[in-house]
Amino acid sequence: MAVYTLVDDEELIAFLATYDLGPLLSCKGIAEGVENSNYYLHTGAGSFILTLYEKRVAEADLPFFLNLMEHLAARGVTCPLPVKNCAGLALGRLAGRPAVIVTFLDGYSIHHPEIAHCAALGANLAQLHLAGADFAQRRRNALSVEGWRPLFSTCASRAEEVATGLRALVDAELDHLERNWPRDLPSGVIHADLFPDNVFFLGERISGLIDFYFACTDAYAYDLAICLNAWCFDAEHRYQPDKGAALLDAYRRIRPLSSAEIEAFPTLARGAALRFLLTRYVDWLNVPPGALVRPKDPREYLAKLRFHQSAADARVYGVGA
Amino acid sequence: MAVYTLVDDEELIAFLATYDLGPLLSCKGIAEGVENSNYYLHTGAGSFILTLYEKRVAEADLPFFLNLMEHLAARGVTCPLPVKNCAGLALGRLAGRPAVIVTFLDGYSIHHPEIAHCAALGANLAQLHLAGADFAQRRRNALSVEGWRPLFSTCASRAEEVATGLRALVDAELDHLERNWPRDLPSGVIHADLFPDNVFFLGERISGLIDFYFACTDAYAYDLAICLNAWCFDAEHRYQPDKGAALLDAYRRIRPLSSAEIEAFPTLARGAALRFLLTRYVDWLNVPPGALVRPKDPREYLAKLRFHQSAADARVYGVGA
Repeated sequence: MAVYTLVDDEELIAFLATYDLGPLLSCKGIAEGVENSNYYLHTGAGSFILTLYEKRVAEADLPFFLNLMEHLAARGVTCPLPVKNCAGLALGRLAGRPAVIVTFLDGYSIHHPEIAHCAALGANLAQLHLAGADFAQRRRNALSVEGWRPLFSTCASRAEEVATGLRALVDAELDHLERNWPRDLPSGVIHADLFPDNVFFLGERISGLIDFYFACTDAYAYDLAICLNAWCFDAEHRYQPDKGAALLDAYRRIRPLSSAEIEAFPTLARGAALRFLLTRYVDWLNVPPGALVRPKDPREYLAKLRFHQSAADARVYGVGA
Repeated sequence: MAVYTLVDDEELIAFLATYDLGPLLSCKGIAEGVENSNYYLHTGAGSFILTLYEKRVAEADLPFFLNLMEHLAARGVTCPLPVKNCAGLALGRLAGRPAVIVTFLDGYSIHHPEIAHCAALGANLAQLHLAGADFAQRRRNALSVEGWRPLFSTCASRAEEVATGLRALVDAELDHLERNWPRDLPSGVIHADLFPDNVFFLGERISGLIDFYFACTDAYAYDLAICLNAWCFDAEHRYQPDKGAALLDAYRRIRPLSSAEIEAFPTLARGAALRFLLTRYVDWLNVPPGALVRPKDPREYLAKLRFHQSAADARVYGVGA
């Protein structure tokens, strides 16, 4: 649920007049994304999504995200294409916020991904990595290993409110990952947040990848590890080997993994689990009064982290020697 | 903001299979209405709104609302038309809730209604009243004068939390209205909640009237008084005579008011203000923990009630001798 900024009809009509999209026909706040305000927009030219960027997205990063979507869309990745206004700019301003209009993508999120969905995701993720390989801009991943300890330190003292033993577990895991984090893996643009909410399907075919606002330059295999965590566990947070194998096999058919990537995979999976454990933990403790968003439970990612800690090597995930 | 019940893709596809609307293409929760969960729905057959009825709407009333929309749409009122499933039924069940699909209406709500909008509203309201005159079903208005005292008594003791002197003011107003409420005015189907949120415009033309879930059988002029309260005051809750005159003149050109309706109008306007003052007051005091909806300020309607109390007769509103 995410409509933070309300847009009135007069502002919107004036904004739309700077585009070549015909008259305003309809605009409805939609429950999509958690970082921004999103609207379904219908104009004389068709259907679009209007996004207003809220404070959590740094305005200086917006050109990276918008150029990336344009770059990927031009290479056949089914992602939203930013629409340029009459001055040739994708980024505008509406209701005091940076704002863009992007193309509307049909498709719907899958609540219970099956093996076929995981396979489709693996193939699309590999295609995204290949399509982004010649993208010239770079963006540091602020939520990688260097960022985790400072993030946890902002509220480490309250860890026992969430789970018994959590503080010691996270401290030990940070020690482990800081010592063992792989540094020289093949890298480039990654999505970094490709959860089921951000992937649209029509049947078993992927029709859209959305929400590129965590995209950054990092190891490709780390993106794969994020997807494994998000897609290949059941509702009780138990790893599903057939889904994991489908994801990884489909990925490797399009972008083969190096032996270094395979060797590092359990560490990457632990890191990916810790990253979402920590951000959910911080959000959980910092729900603002009157918030219209319910935070997600960090303990889901604690369970996933524990699973990966028990993995001796990448064979657990169906890859490696 | 109103998406209370989440619908997953599997349930939705199964539900849609009972309709002749083609495959599911997209479904997004939208911030429309406060009583129900609403989704923008795109299928092979076009765009629709999917509504899931939450607890506040009595299931037994749904046939009244759905039959009314069908009746009005057949007579040229631009309201959503319930879509029937393959069994010929408009009312289905989804995610444990009564659910309907209605046609999608283009248009957008006006945040700052001007005189032309008030005139368009007056004409459309009169047309709605005439179109509903031969609607056979009846539904009592549970939020008319008989309902106000019992509603207030549920939390009268907390009135001073909202405004100094509120309890005495409401008690006196209830006494006045119960003694003076007009009983024999021309009656029929009224919308009873035709706020700017529920009226879509394309330019100065009305393209849709939505949210019929307070519709009931009551005095036509009371519906007009509700609209006057909702449309003809400025942001500081000051009455705008030019907007009021535009609303009433446009209405009377299509459905003339009787002398009894004109004489009763100040009383109806007081009652309409008290009705929304009371429901907002009760909602204000009863925000459930974790609610995703912010209640509206009841004091807006206290100011409007005070204005109407000062009206000597209907000439204040530009009608009457």
